[in-house]
Amino acid sequence: MKALIDRILKDGKCYPGGILKVDKFINHQMDPNLMKDIAVEFIRRFASTKVNKILTIEASGIAPAIMMGFLMNLPVVFAKKKKPNTLDNMLATKVTSFTKQRDYDVVISRDYLCPDDHVIFIDDFLAYGNAAKGIIDLCKQSGATLEGMGFIIEKAFQDGGQYLREQGVRVESLAIIESLENCEIKIKNA
Amino acid sequence: MKALIDRILKDGKCYPGGILKVDKFINHQMDPNLMKDIAVEFIRRFASTKVNKILTIEASGIAPAIMMGFLMNLPVVFAKKKKPNTLDNMLATKVTSFTKQRDYDVVISRDYLCPDDHVIFIDDFLAYGNAAKGIIDLCKQSGATLEGMGFIIEKAFQDGGQYLREQGVRVESLAIIESLENCEIKIKNA
Repeated sequence: MKALIDRILKDGKCYPGGILKVDKFINHQMDPNLMKDIAVEFIRRFASTKVNKILTIEASGIAPAIMMGFLMNLPVVFAKKKKPNTLDNMLATKVTSFTKQRDYDVVISRDYLCPDDHVIFIDDFLAYGNAAKGIIDLCKQSGATLEGMGFIIEKAFQDGGQYLREQGVRVESLAIIESLENCEIKIKNA
Repeated sequence: MKALIDRILKDGKCYPGGILKVDKFINHQMDPNLMKDIAVEFIRRFASTKVNKILTIEASGIAPAIMMGFLMNLPVVFAKKKKPNTLDNMLATKVTSFTKQRDYDVVISRDYLCPDDHVIFIDDFLAYGNAAKGIIDLCKQSGATLEGMGFIIEKAFQDGGQYLREQGVRVESLAIIESLENCEIKIKNA
């Protein structure tokens, strides 16, 4: 997605350890028009998919997911990190965070992820795929069908994308980072 | 806001201890069309306000805030709960959660909340106003002007709204809950 790639090259920042910071336009300050364009691109890429719900995970997945749900007129559910004390009837799974170097629980209510659901999962980053693995587990527990996973940015030099594709998951990433070596952003086909 | 009040009466659930659960349409599963209508209503209520940025806090404020930013063509910044290790140059404040019964840090980068900014803060709930107080503190630290605070739901029987209005903050709440006694939802002017 050219507008996104251009924006990453313009406003993204590299940090040692393979960290790409996009908090000027995606995950701290957000550009709502870019989020709308991202949602349109996900809709285009998943055009052949029958879906009745958009699934995401707090916090940075919410903006692109709500835009997608709005444009498609579909409900959006966000999985929560850690157990809120007012959520009953929930499914839970354990996830390890790459950036935060800790484990956390990801939970979702059975009321909003059901055997009849056909969902697309949307998130900002695909790195080692730990959150994605947690979502796959929650979908399995609930009986919902995971139709695909859409990521704004995939880091191809970490193994989440390979793992998900090997599992037969349909993965669509709008910008694929090949390398962040020497703090230089190299994007596939860019 | 009638559509919101009707929806709360239809799909909201009361729990002992003054807890109102709206996770069918606001803060777990989200209705994107309702979020758009909520954004339009905030825009209407803050029509006389000059604003260059929408401010919110993760996670449930993000959906209405991004809709508002999209419709107004303004950037949206979400304050983060707890210190991410890739955020530099940040402002921090301590907040106590009503539902989660614990303290957490709320942080925002100085890069995205600046002395020139005129912001409206958007969140899902106003109860004791603890998150709102944290946001006021972050605005003070940054030098930004807080033009107003918009909440989807205010609990009038908790003292956050009174506190904020006494401080001279312009508060707009789209549904004001007068009481949840005996697990019955009583809404002002409904």
